[in-house]
Amino acid sequence: MPTKAVADGFVERVELSGHIIDSLLLPKVLDHITAAGGRFEIEQITVGQAQRDPSFAVIAVHAPSADRLQQILADIADHGAVPVDSQDARLVAADIAGAFPEGFYSTTNQRTEVRLAGRWIEVQDQEMDCGILVTPTRSVSEGLSARCAVMTDVKIGQTYVVGHAGVRVRPEERQAKSHGFEFMNSPVSTEKPKGVAIRQIALELLRTRREGGKALLVGGPAIVHTGSVEHVSRLLRGGYIHRLFAGNALATHDIEQALFGTSLGVRLDSGDIIEAGHEHHLRAINRIRRLGGIRRAVETGELKSGIMYECVINNVEFLLAGSIRDDGPLPEVITDTLVAQARMREQIRDVTFCLMVATTLHSIAVGNLLPAWVKVVCVDINPSTVIKLADRGSFQTVGLVTDVEPFFRALVADVDLLAGNPAPAKT
Amino acid sequence: MPTKAVADGFVERVELSGHIIDSLLLPKVLDHITAAGGRFEIEQITVGQAQRDPSFAVIAVHAPSADRLQQILADIADHGAVPVDSQDARLVAADIAGAFPEGFYSTTNQRTEVRLAGRWIEVQDQEMDCGILVTPTRSVSEGLSARCAVMTDVKIGQTYVVGHAGVRVRPEERQAKSHGFEFMNSPVSTEKPKGVAIRQIALELLRTRREGGKALLVGGPAIVHTGSVEHVSRLLRGGYIHRLFAGNALATHDIEQALFGTSLGVRLDSGDIIEAGHEHHLRAINRIRRLGGIRRAVETGELKSGIMYECVINNVEFLLAGSIRDDGPLPEVITDTLVAQARMREQIRDVTFCLMVATTLHSIAVGNLLPAWVKVVCVDINPSTVIKLADRGSFQTVGLVTDVEPFFRALVADVDLLAGNPAPAKT
Amino acid sequence: MPTKAVADGFVERVELSGHIIDSLLLPKVLDHITAAGGRFEIEQITVGQAQRDPSFAVIAVHAPSADRLQQILADIADHGAVPVDSQDARLVAADIAGAFPEGFYSTTNQRTEVRLAGRWIEVQDQEMDCGILVTPTRSVSEGLSARCAVMTDVKIGQTYVVGHAGVRVRPEERQAKSHGFEFMNSPVSTEKPKGVAIRQIALELLRTRREGGKALLVGGPAIVHTGSVEHVSRLLRGGYIHRLFAGNALATHDIEQALFGTSLGVRLDSGDIIEAGHEHHLRAINRIRRLGGIRRAVETGELKSGIMYECVINNVEFLLAGSIRDDGPLPEVITDTLVAQARMREQIRDVTFCLMVATTLHSIAVGNLLPAWVKVVCVDINPSTVIKLADRGSFQTVGLVTDVEPFFRALVADVDLLAGNPAPAKT
Amino acid sequence: MPTKAVADGFVERVELSGHIIDSLLLPKVLDHITAAGGRFEIEQITVGQAQRDPSFAVIAVHAPSADRLQQILADIADHGAVPVDSQDARLVAADIAGAFPEGFYSTTNQRTEVRLAGRWIEVQDQEMDCGILVTPTRSVSEGLSARCAVMTDVKIGQTYVVGHAGVRVRPEERQAKSHGFEFMNSPVSTEKPKGVAIRQIALELLRTRREGGKALLVGGPAIVHTGSVEHVSRLLRGGYIHRLFAGNALATHDIEQALFGTSLGVRLDSGDIIEAGHEHHLRAINRIRRLGGIRRAVETGELKSGIMYECVINNVEFLLAGSIRDDGPLPEVITDTLVAQARMREQIRDVTFCLMVATTLHSIAVGNLLPAWVKVVCVDINPSTVIKLADRGSFQTVGLVTDVEPFFRALVADVDLLAGNPAPAKT
Repeated sequence: MPTKAVADGFVERVELSGHIIDSLLLPKVLDHITAAGGRFEIEQITVGQAQRDPSFAVIAVHAPSADRLQQILADIADHGAVPVDSQDARLVAADIAGAFPEGFYSTTNQRTEVRLAGRWIEVQDQEMDCGILVTPTRSVSEGLSARCAVMTDVKIGQTYVVGHAGVRVRPEERQAKSHGFEFMNSPVSTEKPKGVAIRQIALELLRTRREGGKALLVGGPAIVHTGSVEHVSRLLRGGYIHRLFAGNALATHDIEQALFGTSLGVRLDSGDIIEAGHEHHLRAINRIRRLGGIRRAVETGELKSGIMYECVINNVEFLLAGSIRDDGPLPEVITDTLVAQARMREQIRDVTFCLMVATTLHSIAVGNLLPAWVKVVCVDINPSTVIKLADRGSFQTVGLVTDVEPFFRALVADVDLLAGNPAPAKT
Repeated sequence: MPTKAVADGFVERVELSGHIIDSLLLPKVLDHITAAGGRFEIEQITVGQAQRDPSFAVIAVHAPSADRLQQILADIADHGAVPVDSQDARLVAADIAGAFPEGFYSTTNQRTEVRLAGRWIEVQDQEMDCGILVTPTRSVSEGLSARCAVMTDVKIGQTYVVGHAGVRVRPEERQAKSHGFEFMNSPVSTEKPKGVAIRQIALELLRTRREGGKALLVGGPAIVHTGSVEHVSRLLRGGYIHRLFAGNALATHDIEQALFGTSLGVRLDSGDIIEAGHEHHLRAINRIRRLGGIRRAVETGELKSGIMYECVINNVEFLLAGSIRDDGPLPEVITDTLVAQARMREQIRDVTFCLMVATTLHSIAVGNLLPAWVKVVCVDINPSTVIKLADRGSFQTVGLVTDVEPFFRALVADVDLLAGNPAPAKT
Repeated sequence: MPTKAVADGFVERVELSGHIIDSLLLPKVLDHITAAGGRFEIEQITVGQAQRDPSFAVIAVHAPSADRLQQILADIADHGAVPVDSQDARLVAADIAGAFPEGFYSTTNQRTEVRLAGRWIEVQDQEMDCGILVTPTRSVSEGLSARCAVMTDVKIGQTYVVGHAGVRVRPEERQAKSHGFEFMNSPVSTEKPKGVAIRQIALELLRTRREGGKALLVGGPAIVHTGSVEHVSRLLRGGYIHRLFAGNALATHDIEQALFGTSLGVRLDSGDIIEAGHEHHLRAINRIRRLGGIRRAVETGELKSGIMYECVINNVEFLLAGSIRDDGPLPEVITDTLVAQARMREQIRDVTFCLMVATTLHSIAVGNLLPAWVKVVCVDINPSTVIKLADRGSFQTVGLVTDVEPFFRALVADVDLLAGNPAPAKT
Repeated sequence: MPTKAVADGFVERVELSGHIIDSLLLPKVLDHITAAGGRFEIEQITVGQAQRDPSFAVIAVHAPSADRLQQILADIADHGAVPVDSQDARLVAADIAGAFPEGFYSTTNQRTEVRLAGRWIEVQDQEMDCGILVTPTRSVSEGLSARCAVMTDVKIGQTYVVGHAGVRVRPEERQAKSHGFEFMNSPVSTEKPKGVAIRQIALELLRTRREGGKALLVGGPAIVHTGSVEHVSRLLRGGYIHRLFAGNALATHDIEQALFGTSLGVRLDSGDIIEAGHEHHLRAINRIRRLGGIRRAVETGELKSGIMYECVINNVEFLLAGSIRDDGPLPEVITDTLVAQARMREQIRDVTFCLMVATTLHSIAVGNLLPAWVKVVCVDINPSTVIKLADRGSFQTVGLVTDVEPFFRALVADVDLLAGNPAPAKT
């Protein structure tokens, strides 16, 4: 029984290994212990001599009460501190459908392992704010498997991990120099050289295509308002974007532009405001509803250009999630938010790169679903969107505060240049 | 047949009356005509001599094509310009469920009348971006009635107005000096005296309560994060708020605070970040789901304070609309966005004052539903939220760029002072 | 004596002419009268039948006191309302150096005329927040001349206009469709198509060069941070920019980049942060101070590229105005703010187009000096800068909320395209 | 001679001591070494067992060239890494007035020591971006003294430190739990509980007054626009503010309000816009110039209330620094920016707490002057101001994104409550 009541309180020994000093894991763990009212003693430490050598530390965590100690352990476990004397994870059967057992282990978006029957097993479908569902594997010899499950999917009798014992987290180490986005550390600054950042994103899109990864674009209607439809269309035609998550607004404005040349009544070629054009928005939706949907509108030749058209033509899966501010909506919009989340969850499984542009709602929704190791770039002209994403613990998100149309214009130019394509003729 | 092809194009005469000069209607109409490529001649004008006297103008609108002329007429009709030679509205039966007939009249949020069998009838349930459904009234003697209907509710065979003929709009005239909010004309400026604005809102809340109006609070989770729960609770207890529209986030954070004293893991009394506390968010939802809902949690004594508690105790209807970024969600959350819209639509019918605080999504959703004559105040620390609302034509919205907690703190103090309540003891 | 006390107060008749309806002058005047507690009667009105025809109105302005009436008349005078019964301007000799006589007429940035000896004379050097200095012209036959003079330049005995009598303002009429910037009416929206706006600015730069106008760039250091030096250099080499107003920071960062390849320690080619590089900033200034100035650094071959280099090489006048946050500063920086204002005032006299980019301080300073008829475009990623300019009454300012580097990148591409230049080779 | 060329490059050993792990100094140093292209080996490490025990490390820093090594050493020296084999600082005489010798040591705002004749001496007047001037002390026995000196003050023949040898920096360690501002770590978030933060600032003001410290208010004109004059006046009367740094704008708007009841033409009691009132601004300046200055205006009884009045009456030193956007300016404004900096420098020497409100220009100017150990709180409704301060390395700055008037209202209430004052009667 590892937790001990000692003279001045309760104590448990944890170990921490990896690049715990330059990845800031050790300082963070020490900080959390004291911040939560505990004390620590570093009983043993081996610091990697060179930057590639991992370090290792054993820390005695002291707390004034057993409860406080459990809270500290739970906290630092998310940063990779594992009790030295490990136990199996505790499993409890769900007693109520649609809710976890009390005391359920609440997941992070980091790689996680659970100890079951003495063996550490990696948790599948890693996602934050889930429970860990443990099920027998099909082949008896393999034993048990574990995966993240959402609260609404809980069925009575399913077995979930409760408490922090027997769970360990493998935080992503900062790959400072390797993934090329380190320059964007201060995600909200508007005064950084953007050309370099855009070049990096272009390289990432090329690498994704070359290596057979999947790039997901999460986009808001400002993509259309700002006149970026043709830029995004080029990326879709070029095979750089493999999924599109958006809402009714992006699709509607895109279709409005394809049908009427306006977006919310603003002519995108001249910038003129076509006052009566505010109706175009609704007429575009109505037209598509009359035709039976976006795919049908492409098939019948009514819809001949734009982002949605390119998705259909280039077999890029698109997912339109509904919101309460939608007009219409378009037939393809999934109006039930739980159904939309479930579909998004299925479609992000193989995503390796995610570009979020000009949408807070959809960006946060997707950020909630992605595991920590998927690279995410969030582009918005409003610093507060980027701040909101960063505040929510989606730490893999790097932000770029810039304007949508010039961003896409530059991105397409860089992609063309790097791919060795001739520059397209100006239209 | 009023529209005539003349030597240099097509022409139609329209008339405009009311405070068309100081309400800017005449300048706007003239501006739109030329902006859309038309020409005008003012054939007759009578300008009210004093500021209370209405003015009247007859304008010949010229356009190079019949189509252009129709577009101009449709446009200026939204500002109250009515063809001199009026016709009945044209009615077409819906041929497809869930979509309007082609050419349907798309509504604004202004008072609207349709001419049916020679009589002008006011349209009921005024809402922007709808069609006008015409049905026989129950009593044959009364004839026909007209009301706004949304696209998804269209049933085959229902009769809708098509085109602009026989429809006239009665734009709200700027009641410059009467409603007390005129000082907030530049909705995005952060450098205005806020004390005066807050005083006006307090007066509005008192007036609403005194006159039996209904005040709707549309709120985002920052109300909880910023420590405003007790302020809002006081307004609920005092009978100043009669409806609450929010999402899963506000309710969850509020309940998290009531159960654990934190909001997204931040202790609201001390500002400490309880690192493990990010789980509290999910545990709060899980707890309520286990109990069967918010009302049930209040009845069983589990939930003893907070905004949701006060709603239940004080019989304030609350409506929680789902979004794709929701965790959980709480049982009362309406996850289908169309269902949520329908419920919101029902509940705003008798709302006379609307206070939108710190939520873009819900504010725009509600702004889409409200008729132009309901006073709306939008409070956000981020100017872009206010700008977005203003950009969408919800012109009755006045904005206040300020911080949520100090706003509510001052609002409650003003309400107490104006209501003659003794200042509450500090807790 | 025009102002009359009548039964219910005081009254004066004013006249207003021009495009007073579609330029909103009449509605504004009527609005101000009532907002200030007055009443009006429109005694006579002739509305131009077509949009090119001017209109004309005579309005009786009523007020409860003589003081109030004077305030209303002063107010509406700024919108072009002129008393029917006109008088000569009243002149008072300055009794104190560096201060106007009490009651001095405070200028706007609109074309202004004063009536002297029965003749209306146009005021020279129009600038807001000045007094009007009246002096005899050199040739006796011409009589008197009038020009704007700043408070600090007042000398004892000079003659200034006092009161509003005999002063009339000719407000710029909205040239809605002619100057091409009308699309940018909502200057703070970030969701407008930017490509069109940038094209318009490019056209303006070409027109300015072709017609021998002078284009002034007012720029902040973000031009350098964001990696726009080469773009601006191209505009300077191309002869599109004829003046540069900036501060120590822009010049220093530009020179730091030219000497060390960094800006505030960030490598602009790779985005790497050269930590020790924060010193580069100070070393750049020190180097230039040791050499005796920027021009000298160019002449000696130490400074070989960048915005300041191009200014020197291409004979573009630059003016560096000091501020209290300056390090160093560079030798050319004018540290006295009154001297800097005086130099700016001299240099803006012949400016016909002004592009303000990423600097609140210098933009407002220049906005204070420019007359209303100089076209100004203000570009900033932060909406609040644009809002501040608009709030200060520099109404000729149209704003573009966008990112600096992509803005300049697109602007240079458009200028090249429109000028028929071959696209430059990528470097 | 410590730096050695070895097989694979150049190497030097540095030592680091203190709370190098939980203060993140060690990780930072290691990160900088690799970021700058070097390598490290940790030759020796002793980690403090408990959180109060200091740690100690000896690190061998490798680099591919001598230049690169010097840059790395310079960089990590700012974080407290000191070469093991220490030398005296190298001194070079200034050869040019107003410029440092090439290679001068550029200071940080951290406590710094220089080794002179084998002894470590603390540098006086610590300020970033200066040189270190070494002079003989008056008494021969004491030897040499060192202090920060600005570039413009350099005189030929003065002795300055060159290079990084013999200079060591003592970075402020994060006093995580002691100074009470740790909750404001994410300075740009708008969604934190503000009440706690304001309480902490109130406590700091009380402590400053009790302990005889000096509190400096750096303020912008939004203090007046937002209606906070009476709040600030109370703080001045209460002895909580001992210095005021501001510009012409704050003083002018304050005086405009005192004389005319408006600020930029907006009535602060009612929020009405007095259109003619834009002149009040200029008239206020002119009035004070006619009287000979602010103090004179108070003495003659013309100026009877407001922030400037309270400064004069309560003997609070105020310093008004000029900028190029000033109208007027008021007689007390220091128009030369170098003179203003010099005065500010004198007046911040004994400041122990600094509150910056709603001014980017003055906040950055003061941030440049203050040593790292002075607590600074920066309050602004615009997150970008706070970001700018943080980006510039003024790391002691904690930011609060909130609205000015409610901030001061709450601050005054907290100060009153904590000081045991009776709440003031509502006016």
